[in-house]
Amino acid sequence: MRQLRPVLHCLLLALPMTIGTALFAADAATLAITACGATADDRSDCTPAVQVALARCRSEGIHTLVFPKGRYDFFPARATERYLAVSNNDPGMKRIAFPLVGVSDLVIDGQGADLVFHGIIVPFVLDGAHHITLRNLSIDWQRPFHSEGVVVAADAGGVELTFSDEFPYQIAGGRFVPQGDNQQGIEIDNALEFDTTLRETAFQVSDNYGFADKVVASAVAPGRVRFSGKFSTPQPHVGNLMALMPNHRLAPAIVILESHDVRLQDVTIFHAGAMGVIAQRSSELALERLVVAPRPGGKRLISATADATHFSGCGGAITMTGCRFENQIDDATNVHGIYTRVTARPDARSVEVKLMHPQQYGVRVADVGDLMQFIHADTLAGYHRAAVTAVRVINQEYTVLTFAEPLPAELRLTDGVLDLRWSADFTARGNRSRGNRARGFLISTAGRVLIEDNDFHVPGSAIIIAGDANYWFESGPVADVTIRGNRFTACGYGTWGRATIAIEPEIRAEHRGLPRYHHGIRIVGNAFEVVDNRVLFAHSVAGLQCTGNTFTPSATYPPTHAEAKRFTVTDCDDVMLQEER
Amino acid sequence: MRQLRPVLHCLLLALPMTIGTALFAADAATLAITACGATADDRSDCTPAVQVALARCRSEGIHTLVFPKGRYDFFPARATERYLAVSNNDPGMKRIAFPLVGVSDLVIDGQGADLVFHGIIVPFVLDGAHHITLRNLSIDWQRPFHSEGVVVAADAGGVELTFSDEFPYQIAGGRFVPQGDNQQGIEIDNALEFDTTLRETAFQVSDNYGFADKVVASAVAPGRVRFSGKFSTPQPHVGNLMALMPNHRLAPAIVILESHDVRLQDVTIFHAGAMGVIAQRSSELALERLVVAPRPGGKRLISATADATHFSGCGGAITMTGCRFENQIDDATNVHGIYTRVTARPDARSVEVKLMHPQQYGVRVADVGDLMQFIHADTLAGYHRAAVTAVRVINQEYTVLTFAEPLPAELRLTDGVLDLRWSADFTARGNRSRGNRARGFLISTAGRVLIEDNDFHVPGSAIIIAGDANYWFESGPVADVTIRGNRFTACGYGTWGRATIAIEPEIRAEHRGLPRYHHGIRIVGNAFEVVDNRVLFAHSVAGLQCTGNTFTPSATYPPTHAEAKRFTVTDCDDVMLQEER
Repeated sequence: MRQLRPVLHCLLLALPMTIGTALFAADAATLAITACGATADDRSDCTPAVQVALARCRSEGIHTLVFPKGRYDFFPARATERYLAVSNNDPGMKRIAFPLVGVSDLVIDGQGADLVFHGIIVPFVLDGAHHITLRNLSIDWQRPFHSEGVVVAADAGGVELTFSDEFPYQIAGGRFVPQGDNQQGIEIDNALEFDTTLRETAFQVSDNYGFADKVVASAVAPGRVRFSGKFSTPQPHVGNLMALMPNHRLAPAIVILESHDVRLQDVTIFHAGAMGVIAQRSSELALERLVVAPRPGGKRLISATADATHFSGCGGAITMTGCRFENQIDDATNVHGIYTRVTARPDARSVEVKLMHPQQYGVRVADVGDLMQFIHADTLAGYHRAAVTAVRVINQEYTVLTFAEPLPAELRLTDGVLDLRWSADFTARGNRSRGNRARGFLISTAGRVLIEDNDFHVPGSAIIIAGDANYWFESGPVADVTIRGNRFTACGYGTWGRATIAIEPEIRAEHRGLPRYHHGIRIVGNAFEVVDNRVLFAHSVAGLQCTGNTFTPSATYPPTHAEAKRFTVTDCDDVMLQEER
Repeated sequence: MRQLRPVLHCLLLALPMTIGTALFAADAATLAITACGATADDRSDCTPAVQVALARCRSEGIHTLVFPKGRYDFFPARATERYLAVSNNDPGMKRIAFPLVGVSDLVIDGQGADLVFHGIIVPFVLDGAHHITLRNLSIDWQRPFHSEGVVVAADAGGVELTFSDEFPYQIAGGRFVPQGDNQQGIEIDNALEFDTTLRETAFQVSDNYGFADKVVASAVAPGRVRFSGKFSTPQPHVGNLMALMPNHRLAPAIVILESHDVRLQDVTIFHAGAMGVIAQRSSELALERLVVAPRPGGKRLISATADATHFSGCGGAITMTGCRFENQIDDATNVHGIYTRVTARPDARSVEVKLMHPQQYGVRVADVGDLMQFIHADTLAGYHRAAVTAVRVINQEYTVLTFAEPLPAELRLTDGVLDLRWSADFTARGNRSRGNRARGFLISTAGRVLIEDNDFHVPGSAIIIAGDANYWFESGPVADVTIRGNRFTACGYGTWGRATIAIEPEIRAEHRGLPRYHHGIRIVGNAFEVVDNRVLFAHSVAGLQCTGNTFTPSATYPPTHAEAKRFTVTDCDDVMLQEER
C-alpha cells in the first residue's frame, strides 16, 4: 500500500483541498468504514464493509482505516474463509472478519469502537502482514463460547446453577447443551469455580476436566440446572460462579502469522473463543495497553476461553507494556518454540520430524537457512546444530529436513529438533496479571528477557520457565532472563504450579556431566506477598541469582505449603540465593 | 506428463535397450510401484512409495504405473493432505493416498492388486486431472467405517447383537462406541437390518436414524451387546445382521474433481467410508465393470457406507457399463446438478447465491461464461437464462454472480440458480444394482439419458427422476430419457420410494399454465417383476411414454400396496401409457 495515487476520492475523510496538496493528502488519507457500507450501531453485518475497505486501502494506497466511534457487528455468513493451523488453537477452515493477508503498512484505528462478533468467526488474522497497527478498539461476542452459572445450592452430591439469558442452553440426555450461534459441536469439558467477591478463581479449586461425562445435568426450573456428580474441587460456595468451558479453541481474537512489525495499542479483548492474541513465526510485536478482561459493568466474569496472549516460534523483539490480563481461562502469556520429534532418518543428511501436539499441526517447522538445534528428549541435552538446506513438508504432521553435512551418529529417533532462528527477546513492563485460571507468564525463549515492574496475582505460578520434548513439546532453554522490581501478590492461592517462580525443564533422565538446560536467570528486587511458601523452584540452571527480594505474608489468603522450603534448587550451578533481604 | 525424456532410468521396468530406441521407450515406459519403495504383501505403508512414483511419472514422462499383483497397505500418517469440499460428502482437510492433482495422461494398472487402507484416508483424488485410467485394482479397509452385528436375540424391548473381531467396540455411558483407527469422533447414526440369507435389506425395514440417542447399549458378554429401545423397523430376526452406520461421510474411495476423461476399468470397491465414486464438475467419465460390493467369501455384508457412485454437476458423457452395485448404504448412482439459492441482489446485474446443503459447501458454483438457469423454488419454473460475466466467491457458502444484462424483475430471493453447462449425457448398460439400502439410479440431468439392459433389485425406487430447490437442492429437469430393456426384479420390497420408477419433482406451488418441469421420458420394453404394485409415479412431465413393458408378480416377496394403482400420473402432457402388453 505504498503506492501513491494523486486522485481525490469523494469518500475519503479529507477536507476539500487544492490539486497542489493532493499528492501528499492521498498518501496520508484515512478511509472510514462507514464510507464502505457499514453503519455504526445498527447491528447489521459489517463484514462485507471490511472487505470493501481492505480492497480500497490496497487499490487506493490508503494506510489508515478508521471506525467512527460506535458499535459494529460481525457475522460469519459472508466472511472470508481460510484454513488456519494456528499453534495451540484448533486448526480448521475459519471465517475471518478482518483478513489482513499479505497486507502492509496499515493502521486500523477503532477510535474507541466496540466490535461485537457473532458465531464462529476469527476477528483479526494477520498473515504475511507487515507494519500493521490495530488501535483503540474492543472485541467482544454477543454469545460467549463458554457459559457462566451462579451457584444457588451445593451439597456433597452436586451443585445447582442459574444461568442468565446471556447463556442459553438445553438439557438433553443428562447433558448441559449450550445453545447459540457458536455452540454447534461444543461440549462442556471443564468447570471451574470463581469467587464473585474477589473476582478470581476460588481458593484452592482445581479443574473438573471430563465434566460432561462425570456429571449428570437435570432441569430444576427455567434457567436453573442441577449438576449431580463428583466435583474435583472443594464443594462450591453459594453465590460463587461456575465457569463451564468448551472443549474446543475455535475462535482466537487476534491471530498473527508469519508477520513482521505489528502493534496492538489500546486494544481491549472482552472475550475470545480461544486465545486473545496468538502470534506464530512473527517478529517485532508490540502490545501496548492491551487489555484482556471481562467488560466492566457487564454480567460476565470470564474473558477469553484460553491464554490471554501466546507467542509460538516468534523472533525479534516482543514487548508488552502496560497491559492487563484478567480472568481468562488460561495463562497470561507463553513465549516458546516448538520441539519437533525425529521420526525417521531417510538418509545421512536428512531427518523426518513430526509435530507432536495436534494443536501444533500445520505450523511451519523450518525454512531453508534456519539453524536447528538437536536434543535428546530424555536429557534435553543439545548435541548438534546445523542449518537447513531443504525442507519438504509431507503434511501437517510430518516434514523432512535436509542439511549440508551428514548428521551425527548420536542422532536417535525421539530426539527433539528446535528452530533457533525464532528466539525472541521479550520485554514485559508495567503489566498486570490477575484472577485467571492457572499461571502468569510462561517464558521459554533463548532471547534476552526482561520482566520488570509487573503485578502478578494469579492462582498458580506467576512465572514458569520450562522446556519439554515429551508432552507439550514447547521449547526451549533460556539464556538471559531478568525478573526485577515486580510485585507477586498472593500468587499460588490455587492449584496450578509448584512455586511462584518455577524453573522446571522436563528432564527425564540422568543428566550428570551434561550442560545445564537453562542459563542466566536473575530474580532481583521483587516484592513477594506470600500465600504458597514455595516461592522458587529451580532445576538445571547455570547462573541463578535470587537476591534482594522482600517476602511478606499475604493478608488475603491463609498460607499454603507452610512447611515447604521457600527455595528448592536442584542441579544448578553458580547459584546466589538470599532468602531474606 | 507429455514431456519426453531421452533418459533411461535403471528402475524402469523395461528391457535393456539401445540408445536408438530410448526416446520411444521412455515415453511408453511403465513404472512399477515396487521400484519406488513398496513391497507387495509386507503390510508396510505404501503411501510414500506412491508419492515417489507420481513424482517420477511426472519428471520422467512415464504414463503407466503398475502394481505387481499382491496386497498393498496404505496409512494416513505420511499421506499428502488437501482440503476437500466434495459434494454430498463431509468437507475437511483430508489425507490422500493417490493425490492425482494436475496430473495428465496416466494409467494406474493394479494388475489385480488389493489396496488395503487404514484409518481416515481417501484412496484416490483426481483434481484437475485429465486422461486418467484406473484399472484392475481393488479398494478395501482393514477396519470398516461401519460396524456389523449378528442378531442373536430380539424382543419388543430391543435386540442383542454379536460382533466379530473385525468390528472392535467399547460400551461407555450406554453407548456403543466403535473402536479402531478410523473411528475417532464417529457416532452410530443409523441401524438397518439385513437379511443374511438373501443378502439384502430385510423385507420392509426402515431406517433407525438417531440410533445412538434412542437406544441404550449394554455389554452382555465379550462381543455381545444388548441394545434396549424402540426400533423403527419391525422386530429384527435372529440370524439377520444389523448394520450400524457412522454419522459422517469421511472417506470416499475415488474422488474426481474438475477432471476430464477418466476411466475406471475393472475397479472393485469392497468398502469406502463414504461414497464409492464421487465426481464433481468433471466430464467424459467411463465406468467399466466397476464393482461396489462386499468382498466375496469375506465376513462383511455391507460395502460402501454411502452411494456407490455419484455425479454432481458433471458434463460430457458419463457411461456406466457392466458395473455391479451391491449392499452399499445408499443409492447406486445419482446424476444431478446443484440449485443454489438467491440470497441477495447486490446490483441490477448481479445475484448473491448460496449453496444450501452443508455437504455442498465449497463446490464451485459457476465459471465465467457458464449459462445459468433461474427458477422459482416453489414452482421450479424456469423464467430466465443468462451467461455469467464475473464470479466472486465470498466463501464456501456464498458466491456473487454477475451478468451482462440486468436481471429480470421477476427475480426473487429464494429463487434457484442452476449451471446449465454441466448437463451430462448418461448411458448405463448392462449394470446390476441390488441389495443396497434405498434406491437405484437417481437421474436429474438435462443431457441425453439411456438406461438399457440393466438389472435392478433394490428395496426402494429403482429409478428416480426428481428435481428440488428446497431441501436437497439437487437439480434439475430431464429432457430426453430412455429406459428400455431393463429387468426390475422385485423392486420396492423396502420402504424407500413411492414407485419402482418415480418421477417426482418437488413442486410446492400451483403450477397451472406453466411449462412442465420434465420432458421426454420413455419407459419401453422393460420387464417388471412386481412386489410393490406402484410401478410408475409421474408428475409434471411433457412427453411421457410407458409402453411395451411386461408385469409379472414376484415369487420372492408378497405383494405390497396391492390396492394401489400401477401408474399414477399427474400434471403430465402428451402421455402414452400401456398397463399390459
